[in-house]
Amino acid sequence: MKAIGIEPGAGAPRLLDVPRPEPEPGEALVRTLRVGVDGTDHEVIAGAHGGAPAGGDYLILGHEAVGVVVDPTTTGLEHGDVVAPTVRRPPPSGPNQYFERGEADMAPPEATVERGIDGAHGFMSEYFTSAAEYLVSVPEARAEWGFLAEPISVSEKALELAHASRSSFAWEPGTALVLGNGSLGLVTVAMLAPDTEVYCLGRCDRSDPSVDLIESLGATYVDSRETPVGSVGEVHEPVDLVYEATGHARHAVEAVTPLAPGGVAALLGVPEDWEFTVDGGAFHRDLVMNNKAIVGSVNSGPSHFGAAIDRLGRFPDGFLEDYVTEVAPLDRFEAAFDPDARSKTAVEFDTL
Amino acid sequence: MKAIGIEPGAGAPRLLDVPRPEPEPGEALVRTLRVGVDGTDHEVIAGAHGGAPAGGDYLILGHEAVGVVVDPTTTGLEHGDVVAPTVRRPPPSGPNQYFERGEADMAPPEATVERGIDGAHGFMSEYFTSAAEYLVSVPEARAEWGFLAEPISVSEKALELAHASRSSFAWEPGTALVLGNGSLGLVTVAMLAPDTEVYCLGRCDRSDPSVDLIESLGATYVDSRETPVGSVGEVHEPVDLVYEATGHARHAVEAVTPLAPGGVAALLGVPEDWEFTVDGGAFHRDLVMNNKAIVGSVNSGPSHFGAAIDRLGRFPDGFLEDYVTEVAPLDRFEAAFDPDARSKTAVEFDTL
Repeated sequence: MKAIGIEPGAGAPRLLDVPRPEPEPGEALVRTLRVGVDGTDHEVIAGAHGGAPAGGDYLILGHEAVGVVVDPTTTGLEHGDVVAPTVRRPPPSGPNQYFERGEADMAPPEATVERGIDGAHGFMSEYFTSAAEYLVSVPEARAEWGFLAEPISVSEKALELAHASRSSFAWEPGTALVLGNGSLGLVTVAMLAPDTEVYCLGRCDRSDPSVDLIESLGATYVDSRETPVGSVGEVHEPVDLVYEATGHARHAVEAVTPLAPGGVAALLGVPEDWEFTVDGGAFHRDLVMNNKAIVGSVNSGPSHFGAAIDRLGRFPDGFLEDYVTEVAPLDRFEAAFDPDARSKTAVEFDTL
Repeated sequence: MKAIGIEPGAGAPRLLDVPRPEPEPGEALVRTLRVGVDGTDHEVIAGAHGGAPAGGDYLILGHEAVGVVVDPTTTGLEHGDVVAPTVRRPPPSGPNQYFERGEADMAPPEATVERGIDGAHGFMSEYFTSAAEYLVSVPEARAEWGFLAEPISVSEKALELAHASRSSFAWEPGTALVLGNGSLGLVTVAMLAPDTEVYCLGRCDRSDPSVDLIESLGATYVDSRETPVGSVGEVHEPVDLVYEATGHARHAVEAVTPLAPGGVAALLGVPEDWEFTVDGGAFHRDLVMNNKAIVGSVNSGPSHFGAAIDRLGRFPDGFLEDYVTEVAPLDRFEAAFDPDARSKTAVEFDTL
């Protein structure tokens, strides 16, 4: 079957011909519909993150997928069920406490592999197999957008952690600042905007299509070259929630400044090592004197996928069509891998 | 009546003769029993923090008090009730949303005054008055230790915030690291030790009495000159919870390193501005990839005082007697103000 993967050192994804996987009992064979592309894929392609399965010399990409069950084996699923797979699987050493609790998303990096990212093949192939516990049902009417369940679920989890961190006192976020207008930042603006006054910070000119998308959601674009993170509270207003999706290491510290008292910054980016100078005294004091918090969040679990699939039905009309700018067929899959895209792209393997 | 206070620039507390306060309707007049001393008092005395009430030229110290109601006016309290007062009161501009919600502890510094610290007289006087909503009942049998309700409540709140921040997944802290073996650190070791393997980090020799106290609680003393914060995870074990009570600004960043996956660092210290170099990339990445969190916490509310008063009944036999090394009578109150004390001290104004 056809697959999209990388070979170490190749520098760009290419079309592979690989054996179709055979499902074990308890696994389903899934016919792939669409697979999304995000910043993590570009990091994997660049060799900055992740790698092939142990002993293998290539990695099938793709961790944002939707497909149709074609062989349910003993899973209890049915032929024709539309499903989105979660990303993490037990490492070669076998299941550990995180998997046993159904909280693989809370595992440290060494206690998991990630399909399409690190140590396990992804979903960018005509078929994939998965144990049933890692497949989340998608209503057939949402199959088209089901590949967005994974990136949205990542935000659902981060927002859940942020809300939990403020659950011991009265906290209803009325204002939020999203750092980053890439594909994860943009969808998070759409998730927050109905209930919240949202600011979205980026580093592009106002002519960029992402700015139109931000404004169409009723949010305010903030150009970080004019208004850096630390000034958003003064130039606009202090915010209850900061959502960081830039991977810019300074943001872990700077995100605290624009927070209102009792606010929380959710961090999702994964920067490289970088030494720089901070006013650590002011950072520490501000966290304490204003009861602020920081939560780091990575990956997501089945409950977050479920919330994401519900969320797909609540976006404003037309948002998904504007947000997803490219669904490339397999014969020109390269169009989905533009590293500068400030929008969502996907590869289409098949239709329902 | 006699009071212990400071006049700006005086550099040391002294005995004052001030008018006895008259309770307004809705306030109680309270005869003071004991008032504790902590690091904040020393900062106020040094002029590093806080100040006199608006328009006044002196500040009565003391924010950790227990007393007996002698005139309940219309409060519904009864003559003879033992009470501990909370610290925050509405600012001169009047009550705001935080006070209206009963969450004064969540107010930013500009939205509150603090009795005995900043903008309002404290409780180190033979009598004080307070509105009933800021007085928490203390069982008569715990009157002797009731002045500890305030410092313990500060830890109760920080631990509540820490637990809340981890409440969206399975989290039961089995291990904890307390940074600081001052009076707040030591009592927090005693709070955590029954359920948790506790490490307590300090910068003193093992001959210091605080080390005996730590070990008598079943906890492990860690000398930061041998094992810095960042190495505790390797030298001992990763910890689910870090509790920072040093005010050392580097600890806001370093506290994340020894955390186990899914761990949380609660910060309570209030450092001055201090610029230094950090590996902000590693800090950011560790927070995200290991789902770690940081919560800042200041002050406490009536529910935390209630928890603290319950906690007073659960410490191991003899702990409070070892922890409180000095209860100085008013005529030699200076003995309670040793800034180098690594234990708890108080001034006694009267007995039940």
